[in-house]
Amino acid sequence: MGKIRIAIDAMGGDNAPEAPVRGAIDALNDRKESISLILLGDEQKIRKMLDGLTYPKDAVTLVNCTEEIEMAEPPVNAISRKKDSSIVKGMRLVRSGEADAFVSAGSTGAVLVGGQVLVGRIKGVERPPLAAVMPTEKGASLLIDCGANVDARPAWLLQFAEMGSIYMEHAMHIKNPTVGILSIGAEEEKGNALVKETIPLLREKEDINFIGPVEARDVPAGAADVIVTDAFSGNLIMKMYEGTATSILHVFKKTLLSSLKTKIGALLIKSSLKSALKTYDASQYGGAPLLGLRGLVVKAHGSSKEKEFRIAVEQCLTFYEEDVNGKIRERMEAEAARMRQMKKAKAAEHPE
Amino acid sequence: MGKIRIAIDAMGGDNAPEAPVRGAIDALNDRKESISLILLGDEQKIRKMLDGLTYPKDAVTLVNCTEEIEMAEPPVNAISRKKDSSIVKGMRLVRSGEADAFVSAGSTGAVLVGGQVLVGRIKGVERPPLAAVMPTEKGASLLIDCGANVDARPAWLLQFAEMGSIYMEHAMHIKNPTVGILSIGAEEEKGNALVKETIPLLREKEDINFIGPVEARDVPAGAADVIVTDAFSGNLIMKMYEGTATSILHVFKKTLLSSLKTKIGALLIKSSLKSALKTYDASQYGGAPLLGLRGLVVKAHGSSKEKEFRIAVEQCLTFYEEDVNGKIRERMEAEAARMRQMKKAKAAEHPE
Repeated sequence: MGKIRIAIDAMGGDNAPEAPVRGAIDALNDRKESISLILLGDEQKIRKMLDGLTYPKDAVTLVNCTEEIEMAEPPVNAISRKKDSSIVKGMRLVRSGEADAFVSAGSTGAVLVGGQVLVGRIKGVERPPLAAVMPTEKGASLLIDCGANVDARPAWLLQFAEMGSIYMEHAMHIKNPTVGILSIGAEEEKGNALVKETIPLLREKEDINFIGPVEARDVPAGAADVIVTDAFSGNLIMKMYEGTATSILHVFKKTLLSSLKTKIGALLIKSSLKSALKTYDASQYGGAPLLGLRGLVVKAHGSSKEKEFRIAVEQCLTFYEEDVNGKIRERMEAEAARMRQMKKAKAAEHPE
Repeated sequence: MGKIRIAIDAMGGDNAPEAPVRGAIDALNDRKESISLILLGDEQKIRKMLDGLTYPKDAVTLVNCTEEIEMAEPPVNAISRKKDSSIVKGMRLVRSGEADAFVSAGSTGAVLVGGQVLVGRIKGVERPPLAAVMPTEKGASLLIDCGANVDARPAWLLQFAEMGSIYMEHAMHIKNPTVGILSIGAEEEKGNALVKETIPLLREKEDINFIGPVEARDVPAGAADVIVTDAFSGNLIMKMYEGTATSILHVFKKTLLSSLKTKIGALLIKSSLKSALKTYDASQYGGAPLLGLRGLVVKAHGSSKEKEFRIAVEQCLTFYEEDVNGKIRERMEAEAARMRQMKKAKAAEHPE
């Protein structure tokens, strides 16, 4: 297996170009034998940044881009018009096979649209889902879909369950990952139409470890390794997690600073608390992969710092070394063969 | 205005019959001039409990019930079969006008089905939503719907916005309450089909104070007074709030007990922290009203204690004194008149 060629959007996110460039170079220096980088963006700016850094020069290529996609731009327009932007050019490199992966902290909409339109799907994949690794009390759960397909269908959710299981098993090294479907009660008859239609299909699948409906209340405790849902619900869960944690910590902080007594108390608990709260630090898991594409696309959080970009690059490497896409492709082929078999059997039963 | 007659499910919830009976009697003793009670359940048990209490005897009626609806029973079956249960009998009292309100901490499903089937809707109301008052950093938001109608339609959400606004204005005394629709982005083009179809309709309505989409991330901070959504999403939000808070507090507690140093720190911050966390105590707001029915039905949390039942009874009193149902009825009539007018105008424009 050769080196993985990772394209980096050097212009995306709040801390660009410093954070993506430095983070990617850090990862490269750690794993020189396995990684080569393609940095996309304003070449002059990137070159200036690189001048101060030590790294294997022949492992880094620059691709100059003269346009930039803004966060507020309507994604479909942006992708079709700004052909010289780092997002469009990065996606095209993955499409053509010149890059194996693309990491961007730019516009989520543009990354989602670009992934589907420019990179293209693995044959048999109906809709590529955005998957976020969420920290839980137990470790981590994969919330899939958390951003790409808002009005989803049962057949798509089935594929999310399969791709999510493969990702957790091979990229996150969780053996025989449990799969739950997000719902509003433990009983199967609860839930909306999508959930009620999907549950029996998930039960039938033998290649996943389905454990039934998972309630939102149990998500933070780590109720399942893979949590399957439509992107609207998935996004609500992800954002509610973030919002509630932020709000509680805000109230805590205010309380701890409210008197001399609490300030002394705060000093005594500070370091222990900080390390305990690391459990909830989503950045330790890198970015959110868009699964089911003919290459890997990773959406990093807009606020990502150097460290998160380094982790996202390492995440691409694991994905590549474990051949996650090869495994998704195999699973989709097997599934297509199974469907053909079923059709044949049915046709034999009821000859016309 | 006469006394409000409040029916209480004395058998519902984890702490029945003690908590519902004691809580209701507490409220009665506080507001003797305004409340009369009908306690439904095992008469012998209730009578035993009442024997130890002081209260105006003529303000309390007992209704014996020989059946009980279990939490796990399929609600539709339970409601149609167990005619001698406290839930069915309580609902019937509201339907017949013998009671103005019914409070139950029993099976949520049975309360929802019973409300719709046995109590019946106010004319013009399409679907009665379950509304939960959620504590926020700013005070409280009404999450409507949080349990009744999972696959909702735009027209229903419009009515949720109207009924929720009336409830917050009159039962919670928030002037000109802001209304947001739960979505996954501040931009209107984000969201699922339901949200995208509902937004323009909400914008058109002149009798509500619509402020646009609200992201889950901003809910805990108090982004809107009324948050309109389908019951699936609403329930996810409510449960994720609960689950995240529980999980964080769990990690905090473990940390504070982890060493002598942190234990001393914990002692110093304990009382301040406790009072700060009261912000997040949902029980201060009583139960969740099922709005749009021909009487008030309040679903109390299954774990409700004496205090929560007392608050739920007071909540019924405010609802009655402020004539919230009369205001909902007026709004529905005005809306129906407006629709008739529009149809007439259209017919005049295009005579056949």
